[in-house]
Amino acid sequence: MKNKQVISVADNRNNEDSLPENRMPVIRVPAMHADQNSGGSIFGGWIMSYVDIAGSIPALDRVRGPVVTRAVDSFEFKKPVFVDDLISCYAEIVSEGRTSMKVKVEVFAERMKKGETSCVKVTEATLTFVAIDENRQPKKLPAK
Amino acid sequence: MKNKQVISVADNRNNEDSLPENRMPVIRVPAMHADQNSGGSIFGGWIMSYVDIAGSIPALDRVRGPVVTRAVDSFEFKKPVFVDDLISCYAEIVSEGRTSMKVKVEVFAERMKKGETSCVKVTEATLTFVAIDENRQPKKLPAK
Amino acid sequence: MKNKQVISVADNRNNEDSLPENRMPVIRVPAMHADQNSGGSIFGGWIMSYVDIAGSIPALDRVRGPVVTRAVDSFEFKKPVFVDDLISCYAEIVSEGRTSMKVKVEVFAERMKKGETSCVKVTEATLTFVAIDENRQPKKLPAK
Amino acid sequence: MKNKQVISVADNRNNEDSLPENRMPVIRVPAMHADQNSGGSIFGGWIMSYVDIAGSIPALDRVRGPVVTRAVDSFEFKKPVFVDDLISCYAEIVSEGRTSMKVKVEVFAERMKKGETSCVKVTEATLTFVAIDENRQPKKLPAK
Amino acid sequence: MKNKQVISVADNRNNEDSLPENRMPVIRVPAMHADQNSGGSIFGGWIMSYVDIAGSIPALDRVRGPVVTRAVDSFEFKKPVFVDDLISCYAEIVSEGRTSMKVKVEVFAERMKKGETSCVKVTEATLTFVAIDENRQPKKLPAK
Amino acid sequence: MKNKQVISVADNRNNEDSLPENRMPVIRVPAMHADQNSGGSIFGGWIMSYVDIAGSIPALDRVRGPVVTRAVDSFEFKKPVFVDDLISCYAEIVSEGRTSMKVKVEVFAERMKKGETSCVKVTEATLTFVAIDENRQPKKLPAK
Repeated sequence: MKNKQVISVADNRNNEDSLPENRMPVIRVPAMHADQNSGGSIFGGWIMSYVDIAGSIPALDRVRGPVVTRAVDSFEFKKPVFVDDLISCYAEIVSEGRTSMKVKVEVFAERMKKGETSCVKVTEATLTFVAIDENRQPKKLPAK
Repeated sequence: MKNKQVISVADNRNNEDSLPENRMPVIRVPAMHADQNSGGSIFGGWIMSYVDIAGSIPALDRVRGPVVTRAVDSFEFKKPVFVDDLISCYAEIVSEGRTSMKVKVEVFAERMKKGETSCVKVTEATLTFVAIDENRQPKKLPAK
Repeated sequence: MKNKQVISVADNRNNEDSLPENRMPVIRVPAMHADQNSGGSIFGGWIMSYVDIAGSIPALDRVRGPVVTRAVDSFEFKKPVFVDDLISCYAEIVSEGRTSMKVKVEVFAERMKKGETSCVKVTEATLTFVAIDENRQPKKLPAK
Repeated sequence: MKNKQVISVADNRNNEDSLPENRMPVIRVPAMHADQNSGGSIFGGWIMSYVDIAGSIPALDRVRGPVVTRAVDSFEFKKPVFVDDLISCYAEIVSEGRTSMKVKVEVFAERMKKGETSCVKVTEATLTFVAIDENRQPKKLPAK
Repeated sequence: MKNKQVISVADNRNNEDSLPENRMPVIRVPAMHADQNSGGSIFGGWIMSYVDIAGSIPALDRVRGPVVTRAVDSFEFKKPVFVDDLISCYAEIVSEGRTSMKVKVEVFAERMKKGETSCVKVTEATLTFVAIDENRQPKKLPAK
Repeated sequence: MKNKQVISVADNRNNEDSLPENRMPVIRVPAMHADQNSGGSIFGGWIMSYVDIAGSIPALDRVRGPVVTRAVDSFEFKKPVFVDDLISCYAEIVSEGRTSMKVKVEVFAERMKKGETSCVKVTEATLTFVAIDENRQPKKLPAK
C-alpha cells in the first residue's frame, strides 16, 4: 500500500504483550457475539480464517493478481480470544520463490478491562501463497 | 490501546488519496464477495455498519463499559467500494460531554490495480456515543 | 409496487408509539440472536444497514435500474432495539433532482411483552440515492 | 400488533399476481446476493427459513411467550425467486387447539423490470406452532 | 458419489434413536451458537434450510445439472435441536418421473452428555426436485 | 457416537481420489456461493475453519466437556475447492496426553461433472485439543 514506510519498519522487540510499534495491521476487527462458540470463547476456526485472509493481503499486493493459499506451517493458539476483543493481524512477505511467497502472520488480541487494556499475542503462522494465471496454473511473480 | 503514541499523533494533511500517516486504523477489513449488491459494488449499509463499529471502539476504550450509539451526523459516500478493496476506518474522540462522546470516523478504501494502488476516502461521519449503566441509563464518563 | 394506493396514502399523525396506518413497510424483519452485541441490544450498525436497504427500495422502484447511496442526513437513535423486536422500515421519495432522489426512512420496533405490545420509533433519516448507468455515472431519472 | 384492523381484514381475492390488499406482511425483505445458489436463483431453503420465521410472528404475538415449530404441511414452490426480488410473507392464525396454533403463511415476490413490476405468489404453507413453558413442555394458550 | 455401495445399502430398522447404519449422511454439521433463537434452541427454519440442501444433493448427483425444489410434503419436528448438537441429514431418491425426482430426507441430532450420547430423529420429509435447462424449463432426466 | 463400528474401521488404502470407505465424515457440507472469493474458488480460511470444527468433534466426544484448540501442525492445500463441491471432513484421535488429544483431520471434495464425479483430497492436518475446566484451565482427560 502507499504508506510503505510505516509497514516496512521492522519490529525487533521480543515483547508479545503489546502491538508491534510502527507497523500497520492488515486486518483489525472486533470479535463479535456471533463468532463465539458455546463455551464463550471465539472459535479457533474463526481465527484461522482471518490468518488466511491476512496473509493473502501482502501476497495480493505483491502479485497484483489472483493468489491461492498453498500451505500453512504449524501454529499454536497461545491464548483464547473472547467476544469484544479487538483482533489485529500483521502480515509480511518473508521470502519469495519463482511463483510463491511465504507470508508471516501474527495475531494479537486487545482486551479492555476496568483499569487497563491487556494485549496478548494469540498466534503466529507462516503461509505459502502462489500466484496463479487465468487457468489457475502457477505464474511467475512480477518483477519488483 | 497501548500504542497511544501512534494513535494520538494528529494527521493534519488535507490529502484524501492516501491513508493518514502515523495513525492506526481501528478497523481494517477487505470487502468480501458476500457483501456486494447485485450491481457489483458494496452496500452503503455494509459501510455504515462498520462506521458504527469503528466509532464505538475509542468510546469503549474511554468508558471501559457499555456504550450505545445515540446519533450520527450527516455523511456522504464520495466513492463506491468494490469487492477486494481493503477498508480502513479511523476513529477518534473529538469532544466529550458529561455522559457522551463525539467520535469522528473516516473510512478509506485501497484498491489494487495492475500498476498501482489507489486509495480513496470513502466517507467520514461524526457519531455520538453515550455511556450507559446496567439499567441502560446514561452514566457519567469516568475521570481521565 | 402494485399496491400503490396502500403505499401512497399519507401518514399525517404525529404519534410515534404505533406503526403508521395505511402504509406498507418496505422492510420488516425480526432482530435475531446473531445480530446483538455483547451488551444485549442490537448494533446501531445493523439498523443503519437496514436504513440503507429500505431507502434503496423506492429509489430502485422509481429508476428501474441501479442506484447508489450518495448521502445520509443526520439521524438519532431514540430507543434501543432488542433481540426479537420486529423492525418495520418505511420509506418514501420526498423529492427528486435530475439524477437523484431524497428518500425518507422511518424505523419502528415492536416489542412483545406479557400484557401488551409496545411500539417505538427507533430512528428516521433522509438518504440521497443517485441513478447510475453501466459506467457508474449519474444518469437522468426516467420520466414518470 | 397494534394495527389489528389492518392485519385482520381478510383478503378474499383469488388473484396471485398482486400483494394482498389491506394486509400487513409480517416479513418483508429483499433477496440478497449472498442468498443465491450457483444457478442464479435463491435457495428453496432460504425461503423455507423465512416461512418458519414468518409463521412464528403471529404465534408469538398470540402467546406472549416461547413457541416451537411442530409441523409444516406440504407446500409447493410455484415460482423461482431471484436476487433483488422483494419478498413479502403474510401470516395469520387460522385455528387454535389447547396448546397449539395453525398459522397460514403466504409468500409473494415482487420483481422490478424495465417497464413494470411483476408480483408472483411463490409459495404458501400451514405451520403448527406449540406454546411451551420454561421446561419446554406444551403449555395452554392464554385466554384471548 | 463414488462409494455407492455404502449409500445404497438400505436401512430397514425402525429405530430412531441411532443413526442409520451403513449409510452416508449427505450433510453433517454442528448446530452453532449463531443459529439459535432467543429461546435457546435452533430455529425450525435453519433445519428446513438444511433439509432442502440435503435433498438437492442426490438430485444434483442424478441430473448432473441444475435442479429446483418444486414441493415439500408435510413434515413434523419431533424433537428440538440445541446448540452443539451434531446434525446428520440422509437423503435418497425414492421415485422418479420424467423430469422430477422425489427425495426422502431424514434428519438426526446427536447430543453429547456427561455419560452418554443421545441420538434423536428430528424430522423427515419428502421433497420434489425438477431438473431444469438453461431457460429454467423442466428437462428430461438423463438416462441412468 | 453410537455407530462406533463404522467410525473405527480403519481406512488403509492409499488412494486419495475417493472417500475413505467404511468411515463416517464428522462434517459434510457443500461449499456455497457466499463462501467464494472473487477469484471463483473457496477461501482457504473457510476450509481451515471447518478443519478446526471437524477436529473438535471427536475431542468433544472423548471429553464430554469443553475443549480448546491448542495447535495445528503444518498443512498443504493440495487442490482448490469450488462452489458446489461437497466437502467431507474425517477426524479421529490419533494420540492422547494427560489433558490433550491429537486429532487427524482429512478433507475431501467431491465435484460433479457431466459424465463423472471426481473426488480429491484437499488437505489434511493434525490438531491438538486440550480439555479445560470451568476456569479454562487444562483438565485431565476422563478415563475411557
